[in-house]
Amino acid sequence: MLAAPAPHLPIVFDLLGILTSSAAGALTGVRKGLDLVGVLVLAAVTGLGGGVLRDLMIGAVPVAMLTDWRYLASATLAAAAVLIAQHPLILGRRVPMVDRVRRRIPLSTAFLVADSATLGCFAVSGTAKALDYGLAVIPAALMGVVTAVGGGVVRDVLVNEVPTVLRRELYAVPALVGALIVGTTNQLDPAATALAFVAAAVTMGLRLLAVRNDWHARLPAP
Amino acid sequence: MLAAPAPHLPIVFDLLGILTSSAAGALTGVRKGLDLVGVLVLAAVTGLGGGVLRDLMIGAVPVAMLTDWRYLASATLAAAAVLIAQHPLILGRRVPMVDRVRRRIPLSTAFLVADSATLGCFAVSGTAKALDYGLAVIPAALMGVVTAVGGGVVRDVLVNEVPTVLRRELYAVPALVGALIVGTTNQLDPAATALAFVAAAVTMGLRLLAVRNDWHARLPAP
Amino acid sequence: MLAAPAPHLPIVFDLLGILTSSAAGALTGVRKGLDLVGVLVLAAVTGLGGGVLRDLMIGAVPVAMLTDWRYLASATLAAAAVLIAQHPLILGRRVPMVDRVRRRIPLSTAFLVADSATLGCFAVSGTAKALDYGLAVIPAALMGVVTAVGGGVVRDVLVNEVPTVLRRELYAVPALVGALIVGTTNQLDPAATALAFVAAAVTMGLRLLAVRNDWHARLPAP
Repeated sequence: MLAAPAPHLPIVFDLLGILTSSAAGALTGVRKGLDLVGVLVLAAVTGLGGGVLRDLMIGAVPVAMLTDWRYLASATLAAAAVLIAQHPLILGRRVPMVDRVRRRIPLSTAFLVADSATLGCFAVSGTAKALDYGLAVIPAALMGVVTAVGGGVVRDVLVNEVPTVLRRELYAVPALVGALIVGTTNQLDPAATALAFVAAAVTMGLRLLAVRNDWHARLPAP
Repeated sequence: MLAAPAPHLPIVFDLLGILTSSAAGALTGVRKGLDLVGVLVLAAVTGLGGGVLRDLMIGAVPVAMLTDWRYLASATLAAAAVLIAQHPLILGRRVPMVDRVRRRIPLSTAFLVADSATLGCFAVSGTAKALDYGLAVIPAALMGVVTAVGGGVVRDVLVNEVPTVLRRELYAVPALVGALIVGTTNQLDPAATALAFVAAAVTMGLRLLAVRNDWHARLPAP
Repeated sequence: MLAAPAPHLPIVFDLLGILTSSAAGALTGVRKGLDLVGVLVLAAVTGLGGGVLRDLMIGAVPVAMLTDWRYLASATLAAAAVLIAQHPLILGRRVPMVDRVRRRIPLSTAFLVADSATLGCFAVSGTAKALDYGLAVIPAALMGVVTAVGGGVVRDVLVNEVPTVLRRELYAVPALVGALIVGTTNQLDPAATALAFVAAAVTMGLRLLAVRNDWHARLPAP
């Protein structure tokens, strides 16, 4: 007899998503020249914002980040890692390995990878948690998308930019594809965990392909 | 014996408001040159945002848009209608009637009518639902105003504009008038449905008059 | 035998915070040249926004501002006081005393004092209410910070500015210090009320010192 794997899905993917999403938020803060507190706040808001929106809308209160210490810890850890990589002097002396990593990976690439991984992880965790709360497949998939893009939207609004999800790049669609994979395969319990990883990978891959190939959903000229 | 009409009031006016509000959001997206996904996202956020804020604040969770499929369907329908009217080529060929409608009605007029109708419908539905949840008249009317202006505020923030409700035009006042009509006449059950339509019409009319006559609530120079 | 003082802490400090926070919001509205309705809306959103965020996240719904009339009354009162002080003509004739106050206290000083007092009051009320709802010390202190900075963040986003909490000034840290004082001394019931005032004063003092001495949390150049 197997223990049901489904209930753990949301938490594992939530924590992974918080790591990558907070890293993306911290990188945005560094790019915008924010100070130490600003970077930490932006990282936390980006990492935790999507999940908070989802928890509020499905009625999972107090929201998970207030009852499970690993949520805040993940956000803090990711922000600290970015700060150390971007500002190796924080440790008091330069660390050659960190310096090398930083020279190899441009800020924009690090951001893109973290942001795409966020889409994948949160599309899975958001949909799975909404299903656990009894929502139907379509609304649950919508909650997956909200979790996936929510933190980034709040981040962009705070630094006074029009959110990526509204601009000329395929962003919400990969999240929706991943969310629908989780939503429609949720009955297949034993395979669910494996399928969740596939869904996250598909989402992340689609997003990276959309950026690399400059895929748009342009409207015909009116 | 009559079935109590009150419980249905919120849903009917919510759905009407979502149709007009999502249309206003989609028109904003078209004006801002967003792509297909951006227009759909902005339409959904505008149409559903005010009701979500209200549902969260009065404790009606999971929020209505997640449990009643007609909410998402209305938002999608309105966005699709705007996209077809603005981009008749989406259907693959020009439709003469749609072209004629589009030439007759400027974008700004269509937006103004949709936005004013939104104020009226949501002022009614927001107040009525808050009363159903046991709120007193003043807080219920406030929820009517929040429902009416909430989606538009989120829309304006996302496209990086200062929300209309803060700028030099009478916007929140018509919504408050409509909300107070619903709040104070709610006891009169048999007449409630008719009065709700009156309240929505008064709100919409006041808003259109405010724009046409350039009514302000200007402060005296300090 | 003493009646337990703790349950009243959140409300007293919430109301004090709403007075100062709504005043700060109204002053921002005046500075931005908003009209009468715009100033009132911005004052209400600033004064009530942080508490609403906290109430939603800890699951205290319907939110306090909808069930306790003093919340709305405090916000309205503070906004009216600012409008009368800034526009003495609203009363129909100039009031010499009000004129004198206005000449003595520059807009920016009035804003800074109101905003710092807000940080102190809301850091206390937010943390105390979260503890009442059973949260652990760290998440409760985080709710104190969210209550303290939340309304100001929404205010700044609405008028299209990057929120102070992200910019180059120590803002969240004083709130966190005050919140942690409340969180860690909460066991000492009889002394809790006095300690709450100390925590609010420390928060406000730290914030004022940070502005006066231009304290930053600057990152080393990468």
